[in-house]
Amino acid sequence: MYPGSFDPITCGHIDIINRASKFCNKLIVAVLVNKEKKPFFSFEERIELIKETTKDLDNIEVITFDGLLVNLFKTYDIDFIIKGLRAVSDFEYEFQMAQINKALEQRAETLFMMTSPRYSYLSSSVVKEIFLFGGEINNFVPPIVRKAMNKKKEMK
Amino acid sequence: MYPGSFDPITCGHIDIINRASKFCNKLIVAVLVNKEKKPFFSFEERIELIKETTKDLDNIEVITFDGLLVNLFKTYDIDFIIKGLRAVSDFEYEFQMAQINKALEQRAETLFMMTSPRYSYLSSSVVKEIFLFGGEINNFVPPIVRKAMNKKKEMK
Amino acid sequence: MYPGSFDPITCGHIDIINRASKFCNKLIVAVLVNKEKKPFFSFEERIELIKETTKDLDNIEVITFDGLLVNLFKTYDIDFIIKGLRAVSDFEYEFQMAQINKALEQRAETLFMMTSPRYSYLSSSVVKEIFLFGGEINNFVPPIVRKAMNKKKEMK
Amino acid sequence: MYPGSFDPITCGHIDIINRASKFCNKLIVAVLVNKEKKPFFSFEERIELIKETTKDLDNIEVITFDGLLVNLFKTYDIDFIIKGLRAVSDFEYEFQMAQINKALEQRAETLFMMTSPRYSYLSSSVVKEIFLFGGEINNFVPPIVRKAMNKKKEMK
Amino acid sequence: MYPGSFDPITCGHIDIINRASKFCNKLIVAVLVNKEKKPFFSFEERIELIKETTKDLDNIEVITFDGLLVNLFKTYDIDFIIKGLRAVSDFEYEFQMAQINKALEQRAETLFMMTSPRYSYLSSSVVKEIFLFGGEINNFVPPIVRKAMNKKKEMK
Amino acid sequence: MYPGSFDPITCGHIDIINRASKFCNKLIVAVLVNKEKKPFFSFEERIELIKETTKDLDNIEVITFDGLLVNLFKTYDIDFIIKGLRAVSDFEYEFQMAQINKALEQRAETLFMMTSPRYSYLSSSVVKEIFLFGGEINNFVPPIVRKAMNKKKEMK
Repeated sequence: MYPGSFDPITCGHIDIINRASKFCNKLIVAVLVNKEKKPFFSFEERIELIKETTKDLDNIEVITFDGLLVNLFKTYDIDFIIKGLRAVSDFEYEFQMAQINKALEQRAETLFMMTSPRYSYLSSSVVKEIFLFGGEINNFVPPIVRKAMNKKKEMK
Repeated sequence: MYPGSFDPITCGHIDIINRASKFCNKLIVAVLVNKEKKPFFSFEERIELIKETTKDLDNIEVITFDGLLVNLFKTYDIDFIIKGLRAVSDFEYEFQMAQINKALEQRAETLFMMTSPRYSYLSSSVVKEIFLFGGEINNFVPPIVRKAMNKKKEMK
Repeated sequence: MYPGSFDPITCGHIDIINRASKFCNKLIVAVLVNKEKKPFFSFEERIELIKETTKDLDNIEVITFDGLLVNLFKTYDIDFIIKGLRAVSDFEYEFQMAQINKALEQRAETLFMMTSPRYSYLSSSVVKEIFLFGGEINNFVPPIVRKAMNKKKEMK
Repeated sequence: MYPGSFDPITCGHIDIINRASKFCNKLIVAVLVNKEKKPFFSFEERIELIKETTKDLDNIEVITFDGLLVNLFKTYDIDFIIKGLRAVSDFEYEFQMAQINKALEQRAETLFMMTSPRYSYLSSSVVKEIFLFGGEINNFVPPIVRKAMNKKKEMK
Repeated sequence: MYPGSFDPITCGHIDIINRASKFCNKLIVAVLVNKEKKPFFSFEERIELIKETTKDLDNIEVITFDGLLVNLFKTYDIDFIIKGLRAVSDFEYEFQMAQINKALEQRAETLFMMTSPRYSYLSSSVVKEIFLFGGEINNFVPPIVRKAMNKKKEMK
Repeated sequence: MYPGSFDPITCGHIDIINRASKFCNKLIVAVLVNKEKKPFFSFEERIELIKETTKDLDNIEVITFDGLLVNLFKTYDIDFIIKGLRAVSDFEYEFQMAQINKALEQRAETLFMMTSPRYSYLSSSVVKEIFLFGGEINNFVPPIVRKAMNKKKEMK
């Protein structure tokens, strides 16, 4: 399982999904529905964009969750959680999360993959910030995500 | 003196208090009253929980402060400030604070203790987040704190 | 070019400007006008304070920008961006920014200078927090900035 | 595949092997034979101790390698490399290694697991140093490893 | 107790000793006698230099130890170990050491003090390296240490 | 001035030299001659390889130095030292060096550039290790360096 907000999915996320899908029988992409934060894309739109950008892979399932990630271990037969690490600050936060998840649910094992160096600076919030200031995001998200962001902007 | 928000006190805080109380004649636990943030527990409730969970130690005094920590050096005869360190991110923030406190008050010496490994992922905000999502917090806070949190939740 | 919010300019900023001005033909200090955040000083006041505190240097130009920093490369003939680094947490954030800027604008080269050890704990937000709690900021900002802060406080 | 020197295998290594064996069909423990360093245990002894301490797991294979780790990808059908991470310093070194391995062999994917907090300070070299100074290593290695170390010491 | 190699004692060490002596009834400076490394100064010379540079403080005792630091807890009535932290790399190493010491001896509590910013780059090995290349070490060690180093150099 | 061992020069070094040469009137590449370490290439060979791999740039000068880097400030008219940073561990070491250099020579200002992400894992010692184990170093050094390494290997 690969959890995240994916608001929106970036080239960094897609790189992790591609690489993880090769050694997982099935990779569940779990989209966090945080009711308190106002996202750029609704969770339905985020799911749609994840499905579109990973449609060449045949072992991906996209689901949503709110509340505690570890509750998914009751519903799904999950072997491990996949997280991408970019930098030391990621490392400490994600390790804390992994330890808490394991304290809450003994089976919750987290495996970390390193982000490809060329995406090491990328995050959804950086993409949104550049986009809102009118910067070029071609190198950061796939064309389909850029189009969806443009469309969304016009509607606002 | 051991300062903090203690909203609520966790097993990590109690571990530091227990260990520090052994080499201090008197350990002042100083509760920050931040008027701008809305805490989970009022400062009276936080003081009560600290007193309850440390009642087996006979050299603890619990006080409150707002404003600058270093002002306490004018009122109390303080030898040093105790802080627990969990990780590198703590380290940098706490070192910055220690340097500022020393710049503001020459006598303000800060001593850092390492958090026990089994509490290295623990913080008051993590406890509150798990609790609000309905997760089990038995391993993170003493029973008396868990009961107080449940009672508080029902009242809201 | 040395970009920042400079709200207000601190002794740490001035140390970087002094040292950078020695090896730059011209040093452009670029003040970020963030329309969404409510600053302590207006951008006009910040420009005025930067000019006052650097008036002994004859190769400083102060400008403002909003939006993306890299857009300035279209208007000005900039060789590089200067940033001060204080600690590891700075390092990771600033490296991410430098990589993004380079991805957006190939010419955007960032050079990092280390902050002098005696200012390694200093930031504009720390200065404001201490000031608002009534602490002494003599060691952190030049007298002219302290006066301006006092005046501003009285007006509020 | 879980590579290392295992000189000797510690409780930290065994914890990683136990947890990784649950989600791997087969876990190959690969012992590095570094001809230039003088190890405490010969590689035959290290293999024997790994086999003994993991004998309750039925999907473990122990092999040796020298030279480049990625060469094993030519001989074995390996899905990924497993590494345990303890701290930030581990993180940077292991990330560098993972990137180099991927540059040398496109299939070489490294997955990182966090070490259990209670073993976060443990390493083979720490165990050896304490042992040689006559310290108690009961909490750090299984009894069978301690016995083998004592026997080795007497022989020298 | 403040342990170290002190080969030689630097202004950074003296700063820690001065500050720690204020809140300790007695501060034991414990000089590590590592029989395998060839030091610049013999342990007798190091003890002499520590005594000379701290002679204005009346609660300092200088001792030597080899082997495990925690063995000193059997001989002396020690409340805690004092260590100075300069940077993140120190932090991780010293935390590992503190955890090992506590695992070996339950009473072994380590308290960390931050090094003064103006000595944050200083270490005995840096001092020796600069000295051997003929650099000026006035800012790094007290005059008496510099003289002893010069004398030592001439004798070689 | 860009100092280093350059044993051998890698694609990471060349990337820094290319980028730095654009904003420097003249870039002095200073090769450290460490008489105590046995290098792979002699300093004459290293100088030759640096000249060959940077021959398209017309503002590069290659020199050697031993002893303290800051002594070069007496001989050459140097505005600043350039160093590449790859990761947090680099950051701390290089900051320490920069502070020491500034303590020894007030004019010694160090400017840090970030290494391009695609070379963030690269170092001369990694290249040598892979090469000696028979790994492919095409992606890490220019062809001319690889040829020189092969030739050197045959001669040994």
